[in-house]
Amino acid sequence: MAGGGDLKVLGVWTSPFVIRVRIVLNLKGLAYEYAEEDLGNKSALLLGSNPVNKTVPVLLHGGRPVNESQVIIQYIDEVWAGSGPAVLPRDPYERAVARFWAAYVDDKVGSAWTGMLFRCRNEEERAAAVARADEALRTLEGALGECSGGEKPFFGGDGIELVDVVLGGYLGWFAAIDRIIGRKLIDPARTPLLAAWEQRFRAADAARGVVPDDVDKVLAFLQTLLAIGSNK
Amino acid sequence: MAGGGDLKVLGVWTSPFVIRVRIVLNLKGLAYEYAEEDLGNKSALLLGSNPVNKTVPVLLHGGRPVNESQVIIQYIDEVWAGSGPAVLPRDPYERAVARFWAAYVDDKVGSAWTGMLFRCRNEEERAAAVARADEALRTLEGALGECSGGEKPFFGGDGIELVDVVLGGYLGWFAAIDRIIGRKLIDPARTPLLAAWEQRFRAADAARGVVPDDVDKVLAFLQTLLAIGSNK
Repeated sequence: MAGGGDLKVLGVWTSPFVIRVRIVLNLKGLAYEYAEEDLGNKSALLLGSNPVNKTVPVLLHGGRPVNESQVIIQYIDEVWAGSGPAVLPRDPYERAVARFWAAYVDDKVGSAWTGMLFRCRNEEERAAAVARADEALRTLEGALGECSGGEKPFFGGDGIELVDVVLGGYLGWFAAIDRIIGRKLIDPARTPLLAAWEQRFRAADAARGVVPDDVDKVLAFLQTLLAIGSNK
Repeated sequence: MAGGGDLKVLGVWTSPFVIRVRIVLNLKGLAYEYAEEDLGNKSALLLGSNPVNKTVPVLLHGGRPVNESQVIIQYIDEVWAGSGPAVLPRDPYERAVARFWAAYVDDKVGSAWTGMLFRCRNEEERAAAVARADEALRTLEGALGECSGGEKPFFGGDGIELVDVVLGGYLGWFAAIDRIIGRKLIDPARTPLLAAWEQRFRAADAARGVVPDDVDKVLAFLQTLLAIGSNK
């Protein structure tokens, strides 16, 4: 791997926001140090690096902190434009389309997910959150068809790009939700393009070892998070 | 004004999201057609251009739609990099810092605002939303001091940049809220840097005629919005 010039990530292993940043560093072939945070007892480095939001991920580059996952991803793509593939498309219009869908994923899928697990006060609320997630995933199924012309393997076309890593970061959480609700959110019958995309994404070199595949371990971790009362 | 090459904005005149896009077009010196939308009866052009979110603003560039205000702003800045000032800083680290604060404004100030007016079911909820807005504005007061070294006129330093237009787009709504809660959200005593910034921002050529200054008219418009049940 190429040296990234003193790169360190503060994260937690189940966080979709952390996972997407690590996948981008992998795509770019950048070596980095990874430090696992305890959300119940955040490090002084985390609190000092992200005093406003106090959340992970934080990317430290030569000691300077960059916060918020989508901001971090763009920073990496801009600073190391010459390393590995472009994570945001080069064409400004295609870049705008990618940014639109990346925002959509966090706005609709991300918020529904927290509703499915963290904010639901009863089964009715959980069912409503699941319905919102289903609707968002159907919309993304359509977007994947459009972005890829129905034939390309990823939202980014032939390779993994912004929308892929933003959505792909959630796959560990999705698997945990699947267990809770007793069916798959990304279902081969309902969203066949996304189901095939998930298989390809999980198998990609940049994602392997970063996207969690041990559902029991993720569920156990989430129970701890619930006890802490944090969802980020 | 320079020709932008067939630019059209679909908007509503009170929307912070629309206002920020119009200010950026003004900063860049780009001529554009503006079409006021009726949120109670959205045009076929709006629904066809933004079928996923059905919201304003939409920027049509040569007929191709770009959606979501922060995405639109970056698109304009990238396509017309040579026209007018850079809206996002040229340096990747400074750009990351600007993107962080722009996201913060929409996340904290924007959501508190809708809570202050739209989502509050009682006075207690409204007070909680006002308190959240106050806290966010205090944080932004600190950020303005840091970004400007305590001496520069704007978040962008000597000129208006991303964070300025994202926050500045809300000023018309703030004035309406001030009337409702009987005091100023951006208050010279509590946030003196922001209060001075507001005066400078409102007086800037790019903002004049775009940031609403008729509070009665804004309040009347918001009553209509409330009746429609839309907040975007």
